[in-house]
Parts: sequence; C-alpha cells; structure tokens
Amino acid sequence: MSVYWNERVRGLSPYTPGEQPKGISRLVKLNTNENPYPPPPEVLEAITQAARRLRLYPDPSSAMLREAAAEHLGLEPENIFAGNGSDEVLAFCFAAFFPSRGDAGGLPVLFPDITYSFYPVYAALWNVETKTIPLREDFSLNTEDYGIPNAGVLFPNPNAPTGIALSTDAMRRILEYQYAHQRVLIIDEAYAAFGAESMAKYVRDFDNMLVVQTCSKAASLAGLRVGYAAGGRALIEALERVRDSFNSYPVDTLAAAGAEAALRNWPYYEKINAAVIAAREEVSRHLRGRGWLVLPSSANFIFASPASVQNGSAENAAGVFQALREQGIVVRYFSGPRVKKFLRISIGSAEDMHFFLQTVDSLNL
Amino acid sequence: MSVYWNERVRGLSPYTPGEQPKGISRLVKLNTNENPYPPPPEVLEAITQAARRLRLYPDPSSAMLREAAAEHLGLEPENIFAGNGSDEVLAFCFAAFFPSRGDAGGLPVLFPDITYSFYPVYAALWNVETKTIPLREDFSLNTEDYGIPNAGVLFPNPNAPTGIALSTDAMRRILEYQYAHQRVLIIDEAYAAFGAESMAKYVRDFDNMLVVQTCSKAASLAGLRVGYAAGGRALIEALERVRDSFNSYPVDTLAAAGAEAALRNWPYYEKINAAVIAAREEVSRHLRGRGWLVLPSSANFIFASPASVQNGSAENAAGVFQALREQGIVVRYFSGPRVKKFLRISIGSAEDMHFFLQTVDSLNL
Repeated sequence: MSVYWNERVRGLSPYTPGEQPKGISRLVKLNTNENPYPPPPEVLEAITQAARRLRLYPDPSSAMLREAAAEHLGLEPENIFAGNGSDEVLAFCFAAFFPSRGDAGGLPVLFPDITYSFYPVYAALWNVETKTIPLREDFSLNTEDYGIPNAGVLFPNPNAPTGIALSTDAMRRILEYQYAHQRVLIIDEAYAAFGAESMAKYVRDFDNMLVVQTCSKAASLAGLRVGYAAGGRALIEALERVRDSFNSYPVDTLAAAGAEAALRNWPYYEKINAAVIAAREEVSRHLRGRGWLVLPSSANFIFASPASVQNGSAENAAGVFQALREQGIVVRYFSGPRVKKFLRISIGSAEDMHFFLQTVDSLNL
Repeated sequence: MSVYWNERVRGLSPYTPGEQPKGISRLVKLNTNENPYPPPPEVLEAITQAARRLRLYPDPSSAMLREAAAEHLGLEPENIFAGNGSDEVLAFCFAAFFPSRGDAGGLPVLFPDITYSFYPVYAALWNVETKTIPLREDFSLNTEDYGIPNAGVLFPNPNAPTGIALSTDAMRRILEYQYAHQRVLIIDEAYAAFGAESMAKYVRDFDNMLVVQTCSKAASLAGLRVGYAAGGRALIEALERVRDSFNSYPVDTLAAAGAEAALRNWPYYEKINAAVIAAREEVSRHLRGRGWLVLPSSANFIFASPASVQNGSAENAAGVFQALREQGIVVRYFSGPRVKKFLRISIGSAEDMHFFLQTVDSLNL
C-alpha cells in the first residue's frame, strides 16, 4: 500500500494466473490448459510476412482477423470484436454492459460460484455488483437458478475448472429469459471447441447475447493473446467504444496475422483437438479405474478428485498436487471450499499423459 | 445508443487515431508519427525464434523485456512495467493513480490544454476529474501554472502535437512540487528519443514520478504494441495490480521478444533516429523559408502553420491538408480552436520528405 495508490487500486484483489515455471523443458506442464500441439506452418508464415510491416501501426479495426473469425462462425465481420486475448475482451464486457454499483437499481450480475476466477476480479475493477449462484452438488449448472432479476449473466461453456458443458437447450432457456428482460448474456466459450456446442449461431436472433472465444486453447496460440467476441451490432459497438477509450490498437500486427491464419486453417486444428479429446477420454477412464472421481469434461482439461480423497484418507488434493510436482508434473490446485478435493489437469500430448498416468500408477495416487 | 449499454459506455467519447489508409503503398503517410525506417534484422530474428513458443502462454511478468528496458534506462527490472503499447500503460496509470470523482477531495488531475488527445478520454473512462492548463501563446508550457493543488500531473515531453520539449530543470520544478505534496507526476516520453532529455534518471530519487516510453516511434515498432513505464516500486506495483485485474498477459510472446531485441540493439536506432532528426531540421528550415510558422520540434514530427494562414489569406490549415491529400500526402489536421492553424507532419524518409517539399513548392503552399 502506498500513498500514491488511489482507492480503486487499494480495493483490488488481482487474478493469479497459473505459473509459467522457468526451465520449462524439464517439466510436464499441465497447469494452464495450453494446447500440446503447435500451430500449423501457415500461422508462422503469416507472422513472418506481417513482420515486414512492423514500423507501421496495425489496422485499428483488425479487419482481416474479424473477417476470418466471422467466416469461422458463420457471421459477418460487423458481428465480431477482436481483443488482446479473451481476458481483455471480457474486461471490456464488464466495462461496457454491467452497471456500476449505484447505476444498477440494486441488481447484481450473476455467475456460478465455481467458475473462471477472473470474473470477480473484473467486477471489483469496474465496481460491479455480483451474485454467485451455487452449482449443484455434482457441479452441474441449474438454469432455473438464473431466472431471477439481474443486471446480466455470465458463464463459461464448458465451465471452468469443472469442464462440464451445458446443452444448447439449457443455454437457450437462460438466453430467452435474458432477452425477455433486456439483459445481456455473455457466454465464455474459451474451451467450447473441445466438446461443447457454440451458441454463436444464435447471435443473429438474440441481440442481447455475446459469445466470447479465444485463440489461446483451441488454436494453440496462447502466446499470441488473441480473443474475440461475436454479437449483435449494438453490443460490438459498445466494446469498440470502450476499446477506443483505452487503447486504440489492442491487437498487434503479428497477433492479428497469426490468428487470422489460424482461423483460416481450421481443419488442422480439428485434427489436433480430436487428439486432445481422445487423450482426455483415455486419461479419464484410467483415473476412474483407479478410484478417482473425474467430472465429465468437454474441455481440454479434466477436473478430477484423487482416490485418496474419494476414499477419505485425504481431506484435499494438495498432497497429490505436491507428489506430482516432485516428479516434474505441474497441475493446478485451487484451495477453495468446494474445489479443494480436485485437481485441474490440462490434457497434454499423448506422451505427457502417458508419463502422467505412469506416475499416478507408480506412486499409487 | 442501445438498451444494453451501461452508463459508462453512454458517457464515453472515444479517441480517434490517425487513419491507416488502405492501398497504403501509393500514399506518403505522414499522419501517425511512425518511424520511416524498419527495425533491424535482430528484431525479426527474435520474433522468428519466439514464434516457436506460441502454444504456451507468455511470461506474465515480461521479465526479459523488462530487463532490457531497465538496462536501456540505467534502472532495475523492478522499476519497469511493460504493457500493450504506451496507450495501455497510460490507461492503467489513470486507473491506478488518479482518483475517481468523489475520492479526490475535489482536486483535479492537470494536463495542458493542447496535448495528446487520449488523456481526456482516459479520464472519462475512469471517471477522473481533470483541469486543462493553457499553454502559453507560443505553445510553450509554463511550469509555474502547475504549482497548484492537484490530484496528479501528466504531460508528454516533448509535447504532442506541438513537438516542443521542456528542459530538465523545468520538469524538475514540477517534479519537486509534486513530490513535496505527495502527488504523482507522469511524464509521457513517447517522442523523447528525438531530442528531449529523459527524466528516467530521477526515478531513483523521486518515488512519485513515472516515466512512460514506447517502442512505437523511436524503436520503429508501432505494429508491435509495446510500451513501458519506469518508476519506483510502489508505482510499478500499482500498475501490476491493475493489469492483473484486467488481463494477466497483456504483452504477447512475439511483442516481448521483438521489443527486447530492439532495446538491446539501440545503436542501430540512434543512427536511424539521427536521420529523422536531420530530415526534421531540413524540412523545418525549408518551410520557414516559404513563410510557414514551424514550432521548434524535439519529436519525429513538426507542428507547422502554412504560409497562407500566416499571411492571413486562410483561416485554418484545412485547405492545405486537403491539397496535400489530393497529391497522396496524408498529414494530420486537428480542428480545435488553437490548433486549427497548424498541421502535424510526421517526418518520413528522406525520399518522402523530398516529395513533400516538392509538392509544397509546386502547389505554392
């Protein structure tokens, strides 16, 4: 705390990302849901080409990238907003759609109690009133819980860190309630390409919905920081207004070119992501066979509670986290009350997951 | 305006960047202060190397880039904050240091009436009370005007769009006043490498000062979106708290690698920037010889009032802007009361400036 910090900064509780350990080559890194496979050569080629233009500012509207994203989703470029990672896009959403305390008529923005832990952080930054809605005991989301007066609804599909996806029908129930009440619904589809259905197809019919996607996971471009939102024109324009009050060019030339090439080479990604899905199912089966509880995942990670926790010999998953770490396997452990019995394990390459399962077997975890 | 926009968005008046015209190769683009010379091959090489790591998230702390910036400025890495362009760094500064209306005890943040037009936009986004301090008639900044109770002071050195630099002694007077009153001073050194003295050397002695620099102009990397701030640890930590409440990884892998390589190859940039400075002086001399008023610039642009305005035959510089544009030369015209008599002309390559002066001569501007 310093005399130079304003009230806003004093009140913040910043988000903590999964660590990026140094000396990465000796570790099996299953902690930040990165794609184990590299982007295709077309992406690197596009970046090399674009690097010739670095002395010039980027296109502030990211037109080519938005065109590629629109084509990818079956929409028009004016339905797309591109940003510096879906984290930035979500931060802009909080700034654009969710009322500040005092402007909300007392209504909160709703999201699940167990979800992406950045949501409450954005809410604090923009002074937004929120209410968390508990997931069911089995970590599934009950759509009926969202049929209450609110200032907006936000959830990831599939949810994180549970990996559980909602059906399109279930999401439509929330969407129709929000539409009838003229409230925004934001669906964070960071992991949708690994098994959930995208709601982007409803953008044309529901002008209150924004679908947010990222190139970090499915497009294997976590290092490039590109995310985008799809929605009706008024929602996109609001995001543009916030962006142009913050940073006129958030997507740099190389990021825009690389992400564009990725979206235009989607058949490659369908192949690598199918391999991730197959590995996920294999790992889930194996762990269940050893007595672990593995939630049904539609993402590129699993949320799994070790046998020791399930049989009551351990209270939480911290010991297994530590045991894996000592073998050079880094997964993610959250210490919150409902989630401390679980580990979030990113799905790595077939080789990485083989080593992971071998380690689980040999340590009898 | 839409039912889905919150009060914040309704109240915004976003910044308008200089246009990036399509079909750029046929134009002489002197409107956004880009460097006419490309970055050195080391930058492209670093980017190509870094592109192999794109499936992984970037280092959230941008450690290598911060190390290079620290060395560049003679400071320590913990004195450096890196962001997605200095626009983002400045946006974070407004979020971190300047009080929201109501928290300020009625005191405003001060900046010049003629300056970077993004400052009032940030202030609106973060609900910060501001007061603009008029420059003198000759567009110079009177440091005594800033010796009044305030919630913070912010100005570019050299100033934009005037290009006029303050001496270190003059800046120290403001710095010492702010220090004595425990208020933050932010010096935006976007253009300092073209002829102003950096205040970074005082970071160690004054924990209330933040110096903001960018790789966009002097490092010829406008397309890469990298900026950084240098300051005492408490100021840097405040920026980190805002960042981690907004976007944990604002600097992507390629941007960090390219900017690091740029800062480590500064002798190259000293050469190209010396060429820019020489061209600026030559252009200024030539225009003055034709009856233009050219403000003394320490930046990579000049702020110049055409002969027709100076001799009273035109009220503002819009006609000359249009005449140049018809010849394929794009400069920047601001229509505000004090600045409408001027054009901001970026200094391009020797060839571009030769064509510019030829056009001025042949159209008798």
